[in-house]
Amino acid sequence: MNHKILTGDRPTGPLHLGHYVGSLKNRIELQNQYSQTILIADLQALTDNSHNPKKVSGNILNVLADYLAVGICPTKTTICLQSALPALSELSMFYANLVSVSRLERNPTVKAEIESKEFGSSIPAGFFSYPISQAADITAFDATLVPVGDDQLPMIEITNEIVRKLNNIAQKNILTQAKPLLSDTPRLPGVDGKAKMSKSLGNVITFGSTDDMIVKAVRAMYTDPNHLRVDDPGQVEGNVVFTYLDAFYDDKAFVTQLKNHYSGGGLGDSKLKGILADCLINLITPIRARRERFLADQGELIAILKSGTEVANQQTQAVAQRVKSSFGLNLF
Amino acid sequence: MNHKILTGDRPTGPLHLGHYVGSLKNRIELQNQYSQTILIADLQALTDNSHNPKKVSGNILNVLADYLAVGICPTKTTICLQSALPALSELSMFYANLVSVSRLERNPTVKAEIESKEFGSSIPAGFFSYPISQAADITAFDATLVPVGDDQLPMIEITNEIVRKLNNIAQKNILTQAKPLLSDTPRLPGVDGKAKMSKSLGNVITFGSTDDMIVKAVRAMYTDPNHLRVDDPGQVEGNVVFTYLDAFYDDKAFVTQLKNHYSGGGLGDSKLKGILADCLINLITPIRARRERFLADQGELIAILKSGTEVANQQTQAVAQRVKSSFGLNLF
Repeated sequence: MNHKILTGDRPTGPLHLGHYVGSLKNRIELQNQYSQTILIADLQALTDNSHNPKKVSGNILNVLADYLAVGICPTKTTICLQSALPALSELSMFYANLVSVSRLERNPTVKAEIESKEFGSSIPAGFFSYPISQAADITAFDATLVPVGDDQLPMIEITNEIVRKLNNIAQKNILTQAKPLLSDTPRLPGVDGKAKMSKSLGNVITFGSTDDMIVKAVRAMYTDPNHLRVDDPGQVEGNVVFTYLDAFYDDKAFVTQLKNHYSGGGLGDSKLKGILADCLINLITPIRARRERFLADQGELIAILKSGTEVANQQTQAVAQRVKSSFGLNLF
Repeated sequence: MNHKILTGDRPTGPLHLGHYVGSLKNRIELQNQYSQTILIADLQALTDNSHNPKKVSGNILNVLADYLAVGICPTKTTICLQSALPALSELSMFYANLVSVSRLERNPTVKAEIESKEFGSSIPAGFFSYPISQAADITAFDATLVPVGDDQLPMIEITNEIVRKLNNIAQKNILTQAKPLLSDTPRLPGVDGKAKMSKSLGNVITFGSTDDMIVKAVRAMYTDPNHLRVDDPGQVEGNVVFTYLDAFYDDKAFVTQLKNHYSGGGLGDSKLKGILADCLINLITPIRARRERFLADQGELIAILKSGTEVANQQTQAVAQRVKSSFGLNLF
């Protein structure tokens, strides 16, 4: 089956190695097999950044440059901008009538995000209802596969509930149900070992990092606090340096050898970190160079995004038209 | 000041005499003084009719024919279709980030409508947030005056809160605040005396009513249950026939005379109802004829609506572009 894939990112900062492991690498593979669309989700980013819209708008081209730099190819993947696709907003309005307020309240992802953002009783309505907007994104591209983490499965559920309700009202298959494409890659921790990675926490390595910045970030990585002398046995589990080596070092046999050496004693943190720093510098150097070249020509970046968005406008408007017609709203 | 007026109706049935008194007569005046836009609010109608979208789509041209038949002129008033104006949905998405869920919960109009519709805990998200959509409608036309009843004042308040928040974020007057244009006309009751009028309750006189239907409706009107014999004194207050005479009979002195005669005794219900029926037949006959002529040429109706919607698309897209630009979302 020729699956259609929809995926994307909120443009609230430059992308980093967490994205590389969690989604970008996968997308570089997927674009060769399937029809893939990547949405730069500026509207969704605004749902919790409306007080600071420039944080969102100012990162759109950064994210696009990151995509291109890591190897997402705009002739294979449609890269488009959410706010420039009116059909997504139109579909959101239609779908909002098919989802109850209590259904939104029950959604665990929204629940968790509300708690972590500490909105209290002043949750913006747009944030509260963003699962509806995501359903619009997914269905507007007739996506059949959506790469997600476990925690986002409820989003796919709400989407498919909307699809079934609308198809039932129309008595016809107007919209397509989507399946989750679960990733088996464990989530990369921040360099400080924390699960949550973000540029504002200063615990990420972005694609714009210089060699010095990479070395510095690796040096600061959390290892084994009891591994005081080189000869001491060190712990591999929870050791961020090994987590990163597992994720990025191609020669897995060599990593196993390092782990044995480290846990047996005799391998110092400093040497280990040197190996990781070299590995990350090798990975990032060409990406950084391409990224800088793209960012130096913003006109070209805008042209690429515009062209992808035009393709996306045609697709999404066709779906919105299908929905409208099913309601009899196709007078002209 | 050359005010811009935004007003409209949900197309859930043909319009009736309640609309004539409550809004249509006023609009016929306003179109000569101001720049007036009338929105056929099919999206809003779907917020509580999503299970039966044909009820909405099937009434769009009926409502348009009613407008034209009563004398709303498409060269003076822009008549447009909400679902064919994507900028309204786009603005709704932006505004949803500026309104909290608890603010929507506090809105008395939504509270009351939720109770009257007995949604219980399954209020559709679209219905819950329709004040946001109304704010989009009002601001998308830079409306400065919105004709409303008392009960709709909270809607204007929410709209202006959104305007102030957005202008504050943009540090610039991107959107225009609106003022309510309060009507001093009392609300017309149903022919059964009930405050709520609707075609499904069978207590309205539509513009498609034949003479016989009008006579029958007037005959069924609630008068004074204690006015049993012609000679008995009758009560004017709460007497629906007099309420309608007050609303529709041009010769006010004659109505005063009838009231005196009725309350003094000697004026029978049947004679009184005959006077009202004649009056309403005189009013409706030419409207019904025009209405039938318009409905006989649906191509012409669609062309009129399309043309108004094109004008409205230009206006609303310009406003959406202003909002996007203020957020820096104007890459192309």
